Amino acid sequence: MPTALYGKDILHVKDLKLEQVSLILETAGRYESVLAQGGSLTNMTGQVLATLFFEPSTQTRLTFETAMLKMGGHVVSVTDAKTSNLDVKGEKLYDTGRMISAYASLAVIRHRAEGSAQELAEGASVPVVNGGDGAGQHPTQALMDVFTIKKERGRLNNLTITLVGDLKNGRTVHSLSWLLGKYGPRFYFVSPPELKMPAEITASLLEDGIEVFETADISEAAAKSDVLYMTRVQKERFADIEEYERLKDAYVVNAGFIRKCKHGITIMHPLPRLGEIAREVDAYEGAAYFRQTANGLPVRMAVIALLTGRE
Amino acid sequence: MPTALYGKDILHVKDLKLEQVSLILETAGRYESVLAQGGSLTNMTGQVLATLFFEPSTQTRLTFETAMLKMGGHVVSVTDAKTSNLDVKGEKLYDTGRMISAYASLAVIRHRAEGSAQELAEGASVPVVNGGDGAGQHPTQALMDVFTIKKERGRLNNLTITLVGDLKNGRTVHSLSWLLGKYGPRFYFVSPPELKMPAEITASLLEDGIEVFETADISEAAAKSDVLYMTRVQKERFADIEEYERLKDAYVVNAGFIRKCKHGITIMHPLPRLGEIAREVDAYEGAAYFRQTANGLPVRMAVIALLTGRE
Amino acid sequence: MPTALYGKDILHVKDLKLEQVSLILETAGRYESVLAQGGSLTNMTGQVLATLFFEPSTQTRLTFETAMLKMGGHVVSVTDAKTSNLDVKGEKLYDTGRMISAYASLAVIRHRAEGSAQELAEGASVPVVNGGDGAGQHPTQALMDVFTIKKERGRLNNLTITLVGDLKNGRTVHSLSWLLGKYGPRFYFVSPPELKMPAEITASLLEDGIEVFETADISEAAAKSDVLYMTRVQKERFADIEEYERLKDAYVVNAGFIRKCKHGITIMHPLPRLGEIAREVDAYEGAAYFRQTANGLPVRMAVIALLTGRE
Repeated sequence: MPTALYGKDILHVKDLKLEQVSLILETAGRYESVLAQGGSLTNMTGQVLATLFFEPSTQTRLTFETAMLKMGGHVVSVTDAKTSNLDVKGEKLYDTGRMISAYASLAVIRHRAEGSAQELAEGASVPVVNGGDGAGQHPTQALMDVFTIKKERGRLNNLTITLVGDLKNGRTVHSLSWLLGKYGPRFYFVSPPELKMPAEITASLLEDGIEVFETADISEAAAKSDVLYMTRVQKERFADIEEYERLKDAYVVNAGFIRKCKHGITIMHPLPRLGEIAREVDAYEGAAYFRQTANGLPVRMAVIALLTGRE
Repeated sequence: MPTALYGKDILHVKDLKLEQVSLILETAGRYESVLAQGGSLTNMTGQVLATLFFEPSTQTRLTFETAMLKMGGHVVSVTDAKTSNLDVKGEKLYDTGRMISAYASLAVIRHRAEGSAQELAEGASVPVVNGGDGAGQHPTQALMDVFTIKKERGRLNNLTITLVGDLKNGRTVHSLSWLLGKYGPRFYFVSPPELKMPAEITASLLEDGIEVFETADISEAAAKSDVLYMTRVQKERFADIEEYERLKDAYVVNAGFIRKCKHGITIMHPLPRLGEIAREVDAYEGAAYFRQTANGLPVRMAVIALLTGRE
Repeated sequence: MPTALYGKDILHVKDLKLEQVSLILETAGRYESVLAQGGSLTNMTGQVLATLFFEPSTQTRLTFETAMLKMGGHVVSVTDAKTSNLDVKGEKLYDTGRMISAYASLAVIRHRAEGSAQELAEGASVPVVNGGDGAGQHPTQALMDVFTIKKERGRLNNLTITLVGDLKNGRTVHSLSWLLGKYGPRFYFVSPPELKMPAEITASLLEDGIEVFETADISEAAAKSDVLYMTRVQKERFADIEEYERLKDAYVVNAGFIRKCKHGITIMHPLPRLGEIAREVDAYEGAAYFRQTANGLPVRMAVIALLTGRE
């Protein structure tokens, strides 16, 4: 079923069925091998990817663009958040979707407003990928995280996974908990009370029979987890700067902390980090965050190729 | 005469002779067929287009860039309006023109100041295309509009065409009225009195024997026109925000309005729209604005190829 | 020794040995011939250059990007100085270096902070080129300046060279004086007392036996020099705007001034100029500044190819 994703949008990880996720992971694995062997791809020749980034980003945009270029495709890009005349209201994003469909084969959008990717997709006749919408979703980050966990741990099922940090506002952890939930994990959600995972996400996981432990204490979770997923507390999500200053250093992983974790624990982070993981941890063999970011390339190649039917 | 445009600048539609316009339209038609048949072009291989956008834009820049890429060429781009060290004075644009000529085969510029494209062209030894200079000119928009009218109506002569909105500040309608004037149209210019077409444009058209009706009332014009060209009232052109708020909703096309228009009327808009055309109009078969935006690609391909002698 | 630069960073001209500079100049000369003959290069096929520009620039970034594209490579770019989430602290640049190494073959960075290129390079496993860090270094500008002097004067040794303008804050003249110092020049450093060349640079040159004359008077220097290197007084380096206004017009080259210079003097400028060189000077055959900017392309092609071992 190689075209199971052909023509679809990826706006929310909930849109993906388990076999579609598997197809993406398997395709990404194949592309990773081609790249590792120095091979080249031409499956996107003559096609155009539009990257529409109305909010700061670098890694997401640059890896999507590299993914397209490495398959022989072209890229056009909007990054000028402040001055673009596309950043104001939903109706314009609908029109933008209609307009870019005239020359682009697919589009990736990042935008401050939740629902913006959906609005673009309504206008577009080509596939749209949500590259992060406000505190909402960031599905390709979740896909590369799952790809990483599978590579690092050898499996996706029967794992204990801890998500740490700003679970209220972090779109990365929202997308990831939805997606990992499909594989029957045991979850620890570690955050200050003010930054807990939204109740609707937790409730939905519990309904699906997933074990979820919510706590402000990282110790027990770290001692029992196979994967520790750190996130930064994002300043731009806070109205009150004092609240930000108080909460940002609540959880920090350093060499001493690693010694108290479960042996061989995998440390992940969507990067860039602020101070949540000390640089001394980089040398720890379970520190997977730089491998995790590198996995963005094959996963986004797979997403581009599968959505456009050019895998 | 395939190289009739080779080495030239396109700064103002007035620079174009009728046979040069015909050559562009004919070449664009040919490129459109190649694209529609899934063919590929390589005529710009190894060449570089510089897009210098010192004012917000997306469609103009992205379609120029796609046009270049689809012909096998490369693109380098400046879009960072605020922070670029090129945005201050004309003398610098002269130097910029000299400098980019060392590596680019042609340049497209958008800039807030009228005359900026001219200044760049004075320094450049390669062709320069004006991608919009303040309230001045936007010649490739006019070319794709004329290409659209010819496709939608089957001809360019003997048409009644209404231009609606901010005719004082809208560079799109300035370029378009100059260009359409070559084909002997009957014009209705519909605007509030404060936003009338500049007198020099109207006078020049009348001098050439063109019928021009200026009015604030859209009804008669709509009932008699083959083409209704809507424009948005651009907030950024107003010093007084209250005047903007009062004028922006003066003319709105919706389904009820269409029923009072001449049967089969073609509705155009340079996009993005604000609220001038209700989304319900999108389903009307004479709603040509999304086809119009799509026509930007073959027309800009033709312009790039003809100016560089690589058609 | 064709791979003598393979895998290295170019952060400071001091890092370059004389034979490495010679290799770059010789390689650039070869690429220049290929381009002049309309030939094409494919040595960077499938490779990606990341241009990370956190401070305004156009020529440096656009010539690096063109250089990469003209050798068959790809480019991904960050230019969004204000809104990028990478512009804040050194630790993030370290992480950025780690991250981009997963998909880019090399990176060029421009950043307001001295030492920023060094920080990026510490994280990166791929070569990093300093494209200008604050008032620090800009080594590829110095390389293209030396390449220009060699072409214009036929030699690099035994020349009298005058550097004029803001010698305190100008990174271009810092890099250039270090690099030219290797060829045993006689230097005139002409500036207002407030904007003198940093003492550490002058001291180091004197230590190496170079003749250095520091003066506020341009007349004697101009009468005795083979090369007059003008720079602009950069507004963005001044905290006090009044001091800027007073100093910016201290030295201006016009046609009358040229008549008082040594016969055949070569006039250079890193561009863009503000008012330091009148446009009437452009017609003087020794006005080399536009040829100088054009030399950026082959020199940067050479740097890219040599650092990545793909020359």
